[in-house]
Amino acid sequence: MNVHDLPTPALVVDAEAFEHNLAAMAAVRPGTALRPHVKAFKSTALAGELAAAGHPSFCGATARELVGMARAGLGADLLLANELLDLNRLAALAELATLGARVTVAVDSDETVAAAAQAGIGEVLIDVEVGLPRGGCPPADAARLAEQARRAGLAVRGVMGYEGHLMMEPDETKAEKVAASMRLLTEAHAEVGGDVISGGGTGTYAVNTWVTELQAGSYTLMDTQYGLLDTPFRQALSVLATVLTASPKGWLVADAGLKAMSLDHGDPTVVGGDVWFCSDEHTTFAPSAGTPAPRIGDRVRIHPSHVDPTVALHPVLHVVRGDEVIERWPVDLRGW
Amino acid sequence: MNVHDLPTPALVVDAEAFEHNLAAMAAVRPGTALRPHVKAFKSTALAGELAAAGHPSFCGATARELVGMARAGLGADLLLANELLDLNRLAALAELATLGARVTVAVDSDETVAAAAQAGIGEVLIDVEVGLPRGGCPPADAARLAEQARRAGLAVRGVMGYEGHLMMEPDETKAEKVAASMRLLTEAHAEVGGDVISGGGTGTYAVNTWVTELQAGSYTLMDTQYGLLDTPFRQALSVLATVLTASPKGWLVADAGLKAMSLDHGDPTVVGGDVWFCSDEHTTFAPSAGTPAPRIGDRVRIHPSHVDPTVALHPVLHVVRGDEVIERWPVDLRGW
Repeated sequence: MNVHDLPTPALVVDAEAFEHNLAAMAAVRPGTALRPHVKAFKSTALAGELAAAGHPSFCGATARELVGMARAGLGADLLLANELLDLNRLAALAELATLGARVTVAVDSDETVAAAAQAGIGEVLIDVEVGLPRGGCPPADAARLAEQARRAGLAVRGVMGYEGHLMMEPDETKAEKVAASMRLLTEAHAEVGGDVISGGGTGTYAVNTWVTELQAGSYTLMDTQYGLLDTPFRQALSVLATVLTASPKGWLVADAGLKAMSLDHGDPTVVGGDVWFCSDEHTTFAPSAGTPAPRIGDRVRIHPSHVDPTVALHPVLHVVRGDEVIERWPVDLRGW
Repeated sequence: MNVHDLPTPALVVDAEAFEHNLAAMAAVRPGTALRPHVKAFKSTALAGELAAAGHPSFCGATARELVGMARAGLGADLLLANELLDLNRLAALAELATLGARVTVAVDSDETVAAAAQAGIGEVLIDVEVGLPRGGCPPADAARLAEQARRAGLAVRGVMGYEGHLMMEPDETKAEKVAASMRLLTEAHAEVGGDVISGGGTGTYAVNTWVTELQAGSYTLMDTQYGLLDTPFRQALSVLATVLTASPKGWLVADAGLKAMSLDHGDPTVVGGDVWFCSDEHTTFAPSAGTPAPRIGDRVRIHPSHVDPTVALHPVLHVVRGDEVIERWPVDLRGW
């Protein structure tokens, strides 16, 4: 099928850019030095490409993501990189062992340790707060929590800490600030023990040399926010849309709006256009200066500002080489 | 089931507030004077409540919404209140006649008229641009377009014009500006003919006295943006979340983030809390001054800033009366 025959809006992945991104990251973070984050793409088919590229370990943000990965035969080493208190969902994760999957969950409190133990989880990481105001125990509490986890019968594989507040830090100060953040994590690790120091992301992949495994996912598809950084990763994801209206006053309307692209990191970018605003099912834009205006029925490509929640709005990723749709990757890990 | 036994994040509809909202709108816009907009809630079960409350006509923003409504037996008078060029989807709409459904589509150009006629659509509205830079033909072109539609064999039921740019206009100037906007529409209608003048929304329901049918949907569930207006409608929708982390530094983390709530109209509001920021699966917040801090495992209610795209992120609406879950309304009209 030709990409221009796809009903719109449609998510499109440029195969060449995607392959480039995988190779560029694997050159720095080969094998298990990378733990790709499934939350960015929510697709077992895409995850399978990463496994084929030599990365057998994955992390996810939801129980649903881990269950889907294990059922797809991608459960060699799965980390729930978030806290979870829901005993039913934790028990479902524990049961993934029957599929041969290895499951580790993040814990950051007495309550999350107790829930993991009660649900039959076998292995945990101590999640340490390293500067981002979100999950994670205070660094000074990590050793106590590890001891408590072990007393509860849990194996402690090491520590996790996500310096998410530094992803968009300017290059001039990023390395220094990541070093300070990771010092908290490595000091906690020295007290907690275990083989694993897990953290990082696409925005710090080049400077975070402390983690034993980097939790990056966005680099595979990219978005315009990460595109602001100086990285080798190329924009592989776009939303294909059709121009429905061309106003004589100069604006155009395409049939992809905020139900097809998440705006939490700002407006998306129309290739060859200047976005005015997005509505539920529309993007109003003007042709960029010097660009011929698209006509009614023409297709336009739109690059989202934030890949993770944008992919989660769609049922399928259409992989294209040139104009040919060569594969369909179901977005099969949505929901919770 | 008790609401506190729901896995989180979960969409919750307060039955009492919902019923109040339906009654408050029906008092002003009874029967077919309201054409509820399905895009706000994407649920045939919720639409069935509106039909039972006396509103048999509906509009939608996508072909998928209209197809689902017709299949659910709610196709008495369905309007696609957007342009559509996709011949396959238009043909699917035309075929809904075999289910006894009546389908009308909006057209605003030669191209959309031609596509509707080619696909076998029977009835159209001429969509007129009344100030919002989006779909709609120039008012001066409406008569010509209607004539062209009739030549193409389409029945023209009237006009449509959406004054979306005035939904949040201050009360002092809203009536006057809506009047000016609707003057464009009624003048176009005088030339186009037909019985229907369709437009308006929750934000202009009280002052738009020109339309024969009001296209409102958000009022059923409401959100914090529309909550800023002086209307009788109550916040019926919330996202239920669980506190996962309580930092000694004062913040809390709940398990509903920007994959559970759309941020396009700004951050959501935690009841009893002050939101710091949302991540993919988390909201970081602090307890409001004077409010006892929730503890790990406690449930919190979050009100989204924009109802339409938030509902579209979830598979089901849980209807509660008090703490009892009395019904589950599948969000069965998602996608395109």
